[in-house]
Amino acid sequence: MKQVEKLRNYLKDQHVEAAFITTPDNIFYLSGFRSEPHERLLGIIALKEGDPFLICPRMEMNDASTTGWPFEIVGYSDTEDAWSVLKDAIRKQGVIPTSMAVEKSHLTVERFERMRELFKNTTFTRMDDQLNEMRVIKSEEELSNMRKAAELADLAIQIGCEEITEGKTELEILMTIEYEMMKRGAEKMAFETMVLSGPKTASPHGKPGNRKIRKGDFILFDLGVVFNGYCSDITRTVAFGEPTEEMRRIYETVQEAQQAAVEIVRPGIKAMKVDQTARKIIRDVGYGDYFTHRIGHGLGISVHEFPSITDTNNLVLKEGMVFTIEPGIYIPDLAGVRIEDDVAVTADGVEVLTTFTKELVILK
Amino acid sequence: MKQVEKLRNYLKDQHVEAAFITTPDNIFYLSGFRSEPHERLLGIIALKEGDPFLICPRMEMNDASTTGWPFEIVGYSDTEDAWSVLKDAIRKQGVIPTSMAVEKSHLTVERFERMRELFKNTTFTRMDDQLNEMRVIKSEEELSNMRKAAELADLAIQIGCEEITEGKTELEILMTIEYEMMKRGAEKMAFETMVLSGPKTASPHGKPGNRKIRKGDFILFDLGVVFNGYCSDITRTVAFGEPTEEMRRIYETVQEAQQAAVEIVRPGIKAMKVDQTARKIIRDVGYGDYFTHRIGHGLGISVHEFPSITDTNNLVLKEGMVFTIEPGIYIPDLAGVRIEDDVAVTADGVEVLTTFTKELVILK
Repeated sequence: MKQVEKLRNYLKDQHVEAAFITTPDNIFYLSGFRSEPHERLLGIIALKEGDPFLICPRMEMNDASTTGWPFEIVGYSDTEDAWSVLKDAIRKQGVIPTSMAVEKSHLTVERFERMRELFKNTTFTRMDDQLNEMRVIKSEEELSNMRKAAELADLAIQIGCEEITEGKTELEILMTIEYEMMKRGAEKMAFETMVLSGPKTASPHGKPGNRKIRKGDFILFDLGVVFNGYCSDITRTVAFGEPTEEMRRIYETVQEAQQAAVEIVRPGIKAMKVDQTARKIIRDVGYGDYFTHRIGHGLGISVHEFPSITDTNNLVLKEGMVFTIEPGIYIPDLAGVRIEDDVAVTADGVEVLTTFTKELVILK
Repeated sequence: MKQVEKLRNYLKDQHVEAAFITTPDNIFYLSGFRSEPHERLLGIIALKEGDPFLICPRMEMNDASTTGWPFEIVGYSDTEDAWSVLKDAIRKQGVIPTSMAVEKSHLTVERFERMRELFKNTTFTRMDDQLNEMRVIKSEEELSNMRKAAELADLAIQIGCEEITEGKTELEILMTIEYEMMKRGAEKMAFETMVLSGPKTASPHGKPGNRKIRKGDFILFDLGVVFNGYCSDITRTVAFGEPTEEMRRIYETVQEAQQAAVEIVRPGIKAMKVDQTARKIIRDVGYGDYFTHRIGHGLGISVHEFPSITDTNNLVLKEGMVFTIEPGIYIPDLAGVRIEDDVAVTADGVEVLTTFTKELVILK
């Protein structure tokens, strides 16, 4: 368990006695165990000295034990107090730690108050950023899962385009895409698949529905799949029938901005340069006010993860980072265009994981 | 906005000057606006005096405004500090509140620390339980949405049964179900649909995959849909080919326990009585150790919400509460059976929203 080793090294370096990890994605990163515990407690306790353990609902112990986690699994029933079970399990390992690192961006106030009650003499520190750091550089194995996830996403766009015909609804196209993805080995969709058409494309977070596709529509696909625990995230906007001059101008502006942003990615440049490059092009054409979001976000086990690619983030890009590049222009009541790729920073440049064409596809 | 009125009355009763709501499901309850903001800030500020407002990413302002929220919508861009925007918006309404109620079971430690920095002279209290209380009694309109969601879930089980044939995979059946649900007006699935077969049914939270259905399998469906923002959640276990004696015994025990639990539901009894009724029957047959979870959970806008139906919860049931009743027996490596209905407490008894047969279905 290389990941657990990284965590333990962090505890040693920082002289922190324990870490309590509760984010499902971090738990997956550390243990290979993927679970959505809802309101139930799921966590990993890692100790500077001694073995870590996983705490989970009793009914999930069997699933957890089959994921390759080589350490102890502590279960509790729905009527036991999970926190007392946790404390007892820690006590069994030796003394109660006097310092404990937690994920303050995930731990709720309620749980934190409970922990402070249970561990009265323990000092709590945050280790969100360190966990982000651990996950931000993808290993070759992780990259290979992400390539496969991206390949499936490319195929999903292809399938979506083939499904477009006059009168078909957004939801019908969406469901065919998802059906094909699951059949071809996607674990699940990485997030709620978006198939938007016509004026609905102008909503960056719009909801697919029963709107019927018509000639003259833009159709925007935003989707991703999970493969072996890793996400892809692609957006393509295609035209059904001839687009108007304005639709073409919007498309070409986004395409140019997106391509320019992809091309400047390499180790050593700052994240904000990626956003600024695209934003300048869009602004120069006069659509600046209609590009209403950051250009991208980190991608990996989570579909949105560290780092955030904004025009103010001066994080320096490093080999192994993976993020999205997805500028968009949204003209209310008219149309929107977004083009999104997943890119990995390589030793001397960029690898674009998603490869579906970015030329304007006009379906007849 | 009756819901906002309830919240404002709470503030008046409790002499709290403001509430800050950030749970997406509570935001939907209060505003009709459904959004999954990921790491971005989405919230409603309600004031004892004055109008509430919604704060959301700028790119979602348009969507928010179409949901019928009659009050102000404050937007922020990805590079603005959402918290400063929030504070400015509050200040515009008058003075900074000296007391503010928050959802401690949802608010993260990080956000809470940020708020305490921004509102140095404000006392924070929790209002999670009060929000749960507001949502726990369903109105006739809410019930009507839940009946429709349950009806779709019944149909989903029917479709699942029709899809079962030798050699078909769990995922193939699952995708057909989801496709049909979306076509028939489900907004989305309420959670990850579960289609498990053979020994995999023994895992209460197992993952559907490429296992092929075989004669002699139990097939367990656990699924739900969202209709107009409200969830259903049904489980049925059916046999493909003749079950063994033991499989029959497990099934009949769960069926008897589930039915007995449903039948005792009425206003005035305690929640724990529902669990205890089923648990005693299962225990008496000797399967007590294999019923590893609580009998149910509240259902509504969230698929798991208040109240939790456990064998220790002495909450008194009231007309209008809706929850699941879902006992199960899971024999590792052999088979599991779970039967789950959604029930609403009526003036003098119970209304079972899910109606698919609970007799053992044996598919040929």
